[in-house]
Amino acid sequence: MAEPKENPLMEKIVSLCKRRGFIFQSSEIYGGINGFWDYGPLGAELKRNVKELWWHAMTRQRDDVAGLEATIIMSPQIWKASGHVDTFADTMRECPLTKKRVRADQVEPQSGTAYTFLGAGETKKIEAWLNLFPHDLRNQKIKLLLKPWEQPAFGNVLAGEKNPYTPPTDYPDNLEGRIQKEAFESIKRDTILVLLPIGKPEESVIKKAKEYYYANGFYEPFLFEAWTIKQSGQTLDSIDYHPESGFLLSPPRPFNLMMETNLGPVVSADSKAYLRPETAQAIFAQFKNVLETSRQRVPFGIAQVGKAFRNEVTPRNFTFRSREFEQMELEFFIKPDEVIEAIHGSVFRVHGSGSENSDPGTLNREPQPNWGWEAWHKYWVEERVRFYEGIGLSRETLGFHIQTKEELAHYARACTDILFKFPFSKKDEHGNVAGDELEGIAARSDFDLSQHQRFSGKPMGVFDDELRAAWAKLPKEKSDELWKRYYENRKNYLTKSAKPDETPEQISQQATEDANGLAKGQYIPHVIEPSAGVDRLILALIANAYSEITETDDKGKTETRVTMKFHPRVAPIKAGIFPLLKNKPELVKKAQEVRELLRPWMNVFYDESGSIGKRYARQDEAGTPFCVTIDFDTLGEKPELLDTVTIRYRDDGKQERVKISELLDFLLSKIR
Amino acid sequence: MAEPKENPLMEKIVSLCKRRGFIFQSSEIYGGINGFWDYGPLGAELKRNVKELWWHAMTRQRDDVAGLEATIIMSPQIWKASGHVDTFADTMRECPLTKKRVRADQVEPQSGTAYTFLGAGETKKIEAWLNLFPHDLRNQKIKLLLKPWEQPAFGNVLAGEKNPYTPPTDYPDNLEGRIQKEAFESIKRDTILVLLPIGKPEESVIKKAKEYYYANGFYEPFLFEAWTIKQSGQTLDSIDYHPESGFLLSPPRPFNLMMETNLGPVVSADSKAYLRPETAQAIFAQFKNVLETSRQRVPFGIAQVGKAFRNEVTPRNFTFRSREFEQMELEFFIKPDEVIEAIHGSVFRVHGSGSENSDPGTLNREPQPNWGWEAWHKYWVEERVRFYEGIGLSRETLGFHIQTKEELAHYARACTDILFKFPFSKKDEHGNVAGDELEGIAARSDFDLSQHQRFSGKPMGVFDDELRAAWAKLPKEKSDELWKRYYENRKNYLTKSAKPDETPEQISQQATEDANGLAKGQYIPHVIEPSAGVDRLILALIANAYSEITETDDKGKTETRVTMKFHPRVAPIKAGIFPLLKNKPELVKKAQEVRELLRPWMNVFYDESGSIGKRYARQDEAGTPFCVTIDFDTLGEKPELLDTVTIRYRDDGKQERVKISELLDFLLSKIR
Repeated sequence: MAEPKENPLMEKIVSLCKRRGFIFQSSEIYGGINGFWDYGPLGAELKRNVKELWWHAMTRQRDDVAGLEATIIMSPQIWKASGHVDTFADTMRECPLTKKRVRADQVEPQSGTAYTFLGAGETKKIEAWLNLFPHDLRNQKIKLLLKPWEQPAFGNVLAGEKNPYTPPTDYPDNLEGRIQKEAFESIKRDTILVLLPIGKPEESVIKKAKEYYYANGFYEPFLFEAWTIKQSGQTLDSIDYHPESGFLLSPPRPFNLMMETNLGPVVSADSKAYLRPETAQAIFAQFKNVLETSRQRVPFGIAQVGKAFRNEVTPRNFTFRSREFEQMELEFFIKPDEVIEAIHGSVFRVHGSGSENSDPGTLNREPQPNWGWEAWHKYWVEERVRFYEGIGLSRETLGFHIQTKEELAHYARACTDILFKFPFSKKDEHGNVAGDELEGIAARSDFDLSQHQRFSGKPMGVFDDELRAAWAKLPKEKSDELWKRYYENRKNYLTKSAKPDETPEQISQQATEDANGLAKGQYIPHVIEPSAGVDRLILALIANAYSEITETDDKGKTETRVTMKFHPRVAPIKAGIFPLLKNKPELVKKAQEVRELLRPWMNVFYDESGSIGKRYARQDEAGTPFCVTIDFDTLGEKPELLDTVTIRYRDDGKQERVKISELLDFLLSKIR
Repeated sequence: MAEPKENPLMEKIVSLCKRRGFIFQSSEIYGGINGFWDYGPLGAELKRNVKELWWHAMTRQRDDVAGLEATIIMSPQIWKASGHVDTFADTMRECPLTKKRVRADQVEPQSGTAYTFLGAGETKKIEAWLNLFPHDLRNQKIKLLLKPWEQPAFGNVLAGEKNPYTPPTDYPDNLEGRIQKEAFESIKRDTILVLLPIGKPEESVIKKAKEYYYANGFYEPFLFEAWTIKQSGQTLDSIDYHPESGFLLSPPRPFNLMMETNLGPVVSADSKAYLRPETAQAIFAQFKNVLETSRQRVPFGIAQVGKAFRNEVTPRNFTFRSREFEQMELEFFIKPDEVIEAIHGSVFRVHGSGSENSDPGTLNREPQPNWGWEAWHKYWVEERVRFYEGIGLSRETLGFHIQTKEELAHYARACTDILFKFPFSKKDEHGNVAGDELEGIAARSDFDLSQHQRFSGKPMGVFDDELRAAWAKLPKEKSDELWKRYYENRKNYLTKSAKPDETPEQISQQATEDANGLAKGQYIPHVIEPSAGVDRLILALIANAYSEITETDDKGKTETRVTMKFHPRVAPIKAGIFPLLKNKPELVKKAQEVRELLRPWMNVFYDESGSIGKRYARQDEAGTPFCVTIDFDTLGEKPELLDTVTIRYRDDGKQERVKISELLDFLLSKIR
C-alpha cells in the first residue's frame, strides 16, 4: 500500500495527511485494506465543504437542476440495461504461479532472459530411468526424452496449443520397461516461461519453475528446460511477464469491476445485487419520477452526490484510484438537435468544445433555447472549469483531454476530460505534464434513457407541446429531412443495442415509430454528463495547497514549515481563535465570545496553548486562512483599539486590526 | 412492498412522498427492490438539512468533538473484534416447502388444524402393493404399513428425532415379494406438519403436502397421514407455522445480517469483506489516529454520518426499517469512574437517566470534570432531545425506553432509546403509544476499545498526566480500593470476552496489569454512544409535519389540502418567490433579483405559473415555510411600499410586508 518511492512530494503529502488528520488508511490498526481510505477530522471537513459547494452550485444556485439521493444497491436490472453487467470489465492477465492478476494495459515492461520450461517429470522416477544408462549418456537421454516435443513444436506450444507428443504406450515387460514407463508417465508437458532479470542468478528462475510444478502436483519436479532458448542469451523487453513473479502472463481475459452482494435470507442467483459502480444510472432510472414531481421541463438536470464502488485490481496513487469513492454527477437532459431545429429553424453550434484552444467568446454564459448538444457540452465544460477556479484550482493547474473518435463509446458524441496536474502525473516526451482526470464531461446522446426504456418496458420519452406546434408548421421538405435524420439516429442506436432475436425489420419499424413520435411532440432526451470524482478532487486540492517554507531562525537553525494554501471556501477550518495568554481570564472570556459569535456560521478552532507563533504554524499546516488573536488591546489597553482583534492572513503573514462587530461580515465575505 | 392496508395515514404519507418527490421506491421502473428507497428532490434537501444540522450541532458547535468520514467497507477483522461476525444475527425459522425465512420473534400467530404427514411413498408402487389385497382391506393395510412408526414414536418425530422404524429387509422371493419390496423401499419418513386455516377445504393442505414431497424427489407422492391427529380436529393458535405456506417452521437458527462482498480479482475466503452494519466501529478503529491528530483529550467525541447496510429479512414500515440506511453516530469517550474518583475525590452522579421522570434540574448543562458515566449518559440524552426539539419534534411526540438489565448487552451499563410516535407505532393495553426508536444512547463501558486492542494487538489506552499525579497522592486505602474496583471491572470484561485458550490465570494477570496502569496514568476510555438513524428521523419529520386542511370554496366544493409543517430549519425549500404576474417583465425582473439575493444563503423556489393561491398551495405541500410575493406595490404603485414584498406564512396564512433590504436577515433569523 506504500506509494512509489520515486515521488518524494507524494510521500510528503501522504505523510502530512496522516499527521494532520486529513486522510488515514482505512482499518489501519488491522494492517489496512487495499484501496480504502478514511477522512480524518480535517479531511472530513474539507470533503464536506467541496460536496456542499458542488451541490450549491449545481442545484440551489440554479433553477434548472433538481437533486436526488438514491441508494447504492439498486435492482440488478439497472446494470444490465446500462451495459455494466456485460461490459464493465478490465482486461486482465494472470500469473500462472501466484494467480495474481494485473490489468493487461498496465503491465510494466520487464527486461531479462526468458527461460522456457517445457514441462517436468517426477525426479525420483526420471533419475531411476537415467540410472539405467552410463553417466556420460544422460544428457543425450534427456534430450531424447524431450525430442518429440522439442524444437519444431515449440512455437506452437508458446502460442497456447497442446504439444502433439504422446508418450509411448508399449514398454518392454521387464524392470527396465517398468522404470521407463513410470518415468515417461510422470512427465507433464506444461510449458511455462519465466523471465530472469539481468544480473540475477539462474538458480532463482529454476527455483520459481520448481515452485510452479510443485504447486501443480509434483512431489519433486525434474525440469525439462529448452536450453536452446536459454543459451541464446537473448534479452527481452516485454510487457508479457508478471512484474513480481516474472512468469509469462495468461492471455487477456475480462474481469467485471462491480462488487457483488446478496440480498434476503436465501443466497441464490435471484438474490445477487451489485454495489453501484457509478451514481449516474440512478438518475436515469428515476428520470420520470423527478420530471413528474419537480416542475422541470427539458432542458433540465438531475444532480447526485454519493458513494460508488469498483473492484480495482491495482488501487494506486493514494486516494486517486480507490475501491470505494465518491462521485458528484449531473445528468443534464437536452432536446435532440432535430427538435431544436424543428422549433427554432436552426441549431446554434460551437466548435472546439472545451479545449484550451476553443474560444470562450463564442458561447454566451446564459443558456439559449436554440443550443444544440455541442453548445450545451461546451457550456458545461466551461461551467465546471469555473467551479474549479472558484475553489482555488487555477486554469494553469488544469489540463484537457478531448477524447478521440476511437476512445469514445459508440453512443457518445464527445467527451472532454478536465485534468489536474498531480505530483504523480506523467511527463510526455517534451517534458510536458498533461495531468490526470478530475472530471469527464460526456455528450452521451439518448443512449441511457433508451436503454432503460428497452429494458424496463417503461416509456422514458417526454412530450413537448412546442415541438408539436412547430412541427405542424414545418414545410414538408424540412420535416422530411428532420424525420429522416432522427430516424437514422434511432436506427443506428437500435441496431447497435439490438437483442439477438431482433430483426432488421423490427428495428426499422421501431425507428419509424420513434421518428413519427416527433410530429406528436415526443422524443427521448439526450444528455450531457459532467461527472466528477470527489476523492481525486480532494487530493488535487491538497496537492495544490501544499507549500513549504524554509526559514532560518535567530540561532541559525533551519526549519521547513508546511502551509496548506486552501482556498478559504474549502478550507476545513475558516478561522483560528486565540486568546494571547491562557492564564488571563479576561482574554479567555473575550476569545470565547468571539468563538461563539463566529461558530454558528463557520468552522473555527479555538486554541490557547503555546506561543502565538506556534499556534499560527499549527493553523498554517491545517490550511486555516485566518487567525484571530484577542490581546490586551482588545480589552482596551489602547482605548482606541477596544473591541478590535488582530486578523493574521495565512498566505502572506500580514496582519490587520478589525472591529469585533465587523468581524463576522468581514470573514463571511472572504469565505463564501 | 405495499404498506399494510390498515394504516390510512401511512398510505397518505407514502403517496404524498412519491407525488411530491420526497421519497421514491428505488429502481421503481424495474419493479422496485425490497428495502431500498431513494430520496427525490425535496427528500434529498430535507435529508441534507438534517445531516448538516446534526453535524453542526455535534462537531462545529462544540470544541470537544472531531469529525470522521470512514469507508463503508473495512477490514473484516473489525467485525470479528466487534462481535458482528459471530453474533450479529437474527434468529430465523425456515419454511420447509418454500425455504422462505421469517424472524423467529416476528411470526404472526396462525390458527387452524394441524395436519401431520408422517411421510410418503411413490403412489404407483404403493398402489401395486395394495392391489394385492381385497379392496376392503386396503385401509387396514395402509395402517399396517405405517404401524411401526405410528402412535408411540410420533411424539419423538415431532421433537425432531429420527423415526426408529427401519423397513423389513427380507421379502418373499416371488412377484408379491418384489412388489412389497419396491413399495416399502419407496417410503420416506419425512414428517411435516401443515396448518389448515379454519374454513379452508382439506384438499388445500393435502395439495401442499404433495408439493413438499414432490419437491423432495417423489414423482407422485402417496401421503401417509396421521389421521388420529387430524381427526381430533383440535384448533391451534400458534406462532410455529409459516404465515404464507402454513408449514411448521424449522427450529430457530441464527442468520447474519451483514452483507458480504469480495475484494480483489480472486474470490476466496481471504477476499471476503462486509458492508458495514453500523458506522460506529470505524470510530473505534480510528480512535488513536483521531486522538493524535486532533488535539483532543478525554473526554471528547468522534462523530460520523454515513451509510450502513443490514440484510433485514422483513424490511417494513416504509423507510423505517430498510436494508440500506444512514446513521449519525457519536462516540463520546470518557474517563472511567475510578479515574474520576482518583482525580476529583468523588464522582458526580445522577439517577433516572433520560426518562421523563428524571429531574433535568439535577444536571448542569455545562459538562463538569467530575462527571462519571451516569452524568455523561444523562447529559447526552438531554442534548439529543434538545436537538429533536430544535428541528420541530416536541417532547410530546417523543417517548423513552430505558433498557432493562435483561435487554442490555453484557458490557453495556445503560441504554436509553428516544422514541417517536409514528403512525404505525403500536398501542399498549391502555391505548397509549410508546413509539418506535429514533436513537439509542448507550453507555458501552470500555468494551469496544478493549476488543480492538485485543484483536489488533495495538494499544487503545490513553495516558493522563493528571491521573498519574493524583494517584501518587492518594492514601493507600483509597488507591487500593480504586485499584480493586478497576481490576474487577477489567477481569469481568476479560473473562466474558476471553478466547477459548485463555486461562483464568492469564486473565487475572492481564487485569492486574491493567489496574497497575492506573498508577502510571493509563486507562482505556469508556464510551457514551448516541446513535441515530437518519432515514427514520426523516420519516418522523414527515409524519410530524403532515397535516390536512379541508376547505370549502365559494361554490361549495370541498377540498382537502396537505400542508407539510416542517420546522424552517429542516424545510427543503425555505422560501417560494413569486412575481404576481408572469407576463409583466418588471415584476419578473424584480422577483429574479430577490431570488438572486436569497439564493446564496438558502434553497428557494422561483415560481411564476398559476394563481398565487395555487402557488401557495404547491409550497404548502412542499413544506416551504415562507412565500415572498413581488407585486405592483413592490414596484412603487403605492410609493410608501416601494421595494417591499409580501411574506406569507405557511402555518397560519398570515401575511406581512417586509423591505427587500431587510428580507435576507429576516429570513435568516427564522431558518437558522
